[in-house]
Amino acid sequence: MSAKAEIITIGDEILYGQTLDTNSHWISGELDQLGIKVIRKTTIPDLENHILAAFAEAETRADIILITGGLGPTNDDLTKPCLAKYFGVELEMNEEALTELTELYARSGWELSELNRGQAIQPVGAAKITNELGTAPGIWLEQNDTIFISMPGVPFEMKGIMEKEVLPKLKARFVTGNIHHRILKTGGIAESTLAEKLESWEANLPSHMKLAYLPSLAQVKLRLTAIGEDLKQLEIDADEQIQKCIPLIQKYIYATENISLEERVGQLLREQGKTISCAESCTGGYLSHLFTTIPGSSDYFQGSYVAYSYEIKEKALKVDHKLLTEKGAVSEEVVIQMARNIRKVFNTDIGVSLSGIAGPGGATPDKPVGTIWIAYSDANNTFAKKFIFAKDRKLNIQLSAIVALNIVRRNLMP
Amino acid sequence: MSAKAEIITIGDEILYGQTLDTNSHWISGELDQLGIKVIRKTTIPDLENHILAAFAEAETRADIILITGGLGPTNDDLTKPCLAKYFGVELEMNEEALTELTELYARSGWELSELNRGQAIQPVGAAKITNELGTAPGIWLEQNDTIFISMPGVPFEMKGIMEKEVLPKLKARFVTGNIHHRILKTGGIAESTLAEKLESWEANLPSHMKLAYLPSLAQVKLRLTAIGEDLKQLEIDADEQIQKCIPLIQKYIYATENISLEERVGQLLREQGKTISCAESCTGGYLSHLFTTIPGSSDYFQGSYVAYSYEIKEKALKVDHKLLTEKGAVSEEVVIQMARNIRKVFNTDIGVSLSGIAGPGGATPDKPVGTIWIAYSDANNTFAKKFIFAKDRKLNIQLSAIVALNIVRRNLMP
Repeated sequence: MSAKAEIITIGDEILYGQTLDTNSHWISGELDQLGIKVIRKTTIPDLENHILAAFAEAETRADIILITGGLGPTNDDLTKPCLAKYFGVELEMNEEALTELTELYARSGWELSELNRGQAIQPVGAAKITNELGTAPGIWLEQNDTIFISMPGVPFEMKGIMEKEVLPKLKARFVTGNIHHRILKTGGIAESTLAEKLESWEANLPSHMKLAYLPSLAQVKLRLTAIGEDLKQLEIDADEQIQKCIPLIQKYIYATENISLEERVGQLLREQGKTISCAESCTGGYLSHLFTTIPGSSDYFQGSYVAYSYEIKEKALKVDHKLLTEKGAVSEEVVIQMARNIRKVFNTDIGVSLSGIAGPGGATPDKPVGTIWIAYSDANNTFAKKFIFAKDRKLNIQLSAIVALNIVRRNLMP
Repeated sequence: MSAKAEIITIGDEILYGQTLDTNSHWISGELDQLGIKVIRKTTIPDLENHILAAFAEAETRADIILITGGLGPTNDDLTKPCLAKYFGVELEMNEEALTELTELYARSGWELSELNRGQAIQPVGAAKITNELGTAPGIWLEQNDTIFISMPGVPFEMKGIMEKEVLPKLKARFVTGNIHHRILKTGGIAESTLAEKLESWEANLPSHMKLAYLPSLAQVKLRLTAIGEDLKQLEIDADEQIQKCIPLIQKYIYATENISLEERVGQLLREQGKTISCAESCTGGYLSHLFTTIPGSSDYFQGSYVAYSYEIKEKALKVDHKLLTEKGAVSEEVVIQMARNIRKVFNTDIGVSLSGIAGPGGATPDKPVGTIWIAYSDANNTFAKKFIFAKDRKLNIQLSAIVALNIVRRNLMP
């Protein structure tokens, strides 16, 4: 029987649609990896009666209650007074928390006001959880076999506390035996097609293993989880299954660890000492943006031209005027010239180009919205592919860029 | 006393961290605009006992219960059977829904299977809500002064149903009198500074008006809401207050309607018949991406160079070799040359350039991570500004691009 958890999010700003709650999504994913089941998420306002009622309800159902928000120093931050009331204890100054807070302020050169000192106050009997990234420490309280964990609502502070303190403690307490995960990241294949290819392999997995499909835009992450006593044996078992799985979907797998496609393409370029440049039309800079979100990408990404007009395609990218007018900017011939020429301009090993109708305007009878040409060019190999994506402009931009990354990846992997 | 609503999200995929729930965020914002208070959001698994318990709890608190998810045609979609059980009624075929479904399938050329026919089944006594964008109609049921509204979990289907059917019905029923909103969108000012400048104006608002601060990255949306009987009078009252407010924060306001900064900059460029191009270094294409997310942006956005290397800055952007080596790429002199030269290359009215240390690498003692230079150049005016943003790479990229957009906006507005 796995442990059950609930997540309580406290804050008017989430109920009124001002702030999107991403915390509970992240927490759920982390707990799922430990085999801890989240059975309910609740968002409630900054009101004492609502908070106390939610605590009481959750305690009847869950072993672990994770609370975010309402830990700040102002009057509408009610989590600590409510926890004290619910546990029937007073609030007191936690000297250790105060010392940490004083040091943090001293380092930053700020003054510790009376209001800020209040952040070190905690319910009697609570364990402080160090918050290395902010001023509000977390709180750990237990009664009747239920653990209450209160954390700040600021996402990076919450994540810091979870990774450093909470997840290791929960793992030690609730994960009997061991848990071992293996990741396969795939691109260029739909979830349903992937599921078909893996159907019989998945059906034959040993009972201590399960597979999760985690889809995102034009990508699917596969997570194989093995639960048991002996970690070494779990690693061997998982490896055996992964070795059986890989040949079934080999060409779609871009990584066997939890990294993004743009990160993987960056690794491959760096390993092979290759450089890349892009000529973007319909994607308007988004592919370059994906490359350059990766730290250190300047080692292989040289730059790009975003050529939105015919004029710039001719002038900067030296696309033939005749080709442009005869075939149109969204054509095999033009993207191929764009990919070849950007390689020359930037003197890179690889050139990638994209041109298409992102929409909503610009469609013609034979080129509907979503028609995108993508070309790839290196010293040995130049080709273009046509895709028909979606009706939505933003979706077309994102899909085009991800599919282009996957084309580059396929050409860099054996 | 305003109406109270709760949102129930049904689905294992949300509890296990596979899918981020954006539906309840959007619904909250829409209800808030109508003055309907969301008092709780709950996410529960695809399990009958959890669903029935959540219905019963919510009914004790709310006038309106909005349910998303679990309306599909497969066995793990339990919302309809649970609603029928909760209301003590049978499920029956809704002939009108079946006709709509049959027509939808005929139009798309698909075959209507027995499984799909099931999507027209509803609890006896329920009103069907037409879903123009998908195959699962919504359901409207009432008992004991509480309304249960069930909608599919697919975001664009849910939004279609809400906008076309649910919100107008809720407005007619719960919004006594009228509600009138005015929007001011601001850039280049922190929420706290804005609040200081507006403090006395806000304190003197008439009692039937309230102001909401809705912050996002480097921007704050202000929403003034007036509630009363006479819509014409509300418009006059709101206008009077807006006219008092505007001079207090004039230069930060970029729009008086709900549009994005990139959309506003696009409008200004189009109105003034001006064109723009960008030379991006640290932002790696993200500013171009923001420009080109707007449909029709090819009217004014000509293109950009993403120049990541010194070599390309020299070769394509003709930045002086001496300047680059003496001052470094992240310097006032270099961004100014970049902005001037991109204007010439693309023959545009305006050139914008950015160069900085996005991080985590690349910092020097006098140029810490987050140091970003932004330059603007047009026929009359060329200047550069230095900013120190954050420690995080993605945040630096986003902030730089938004601040650059705001600089362009300030130069296009009187």
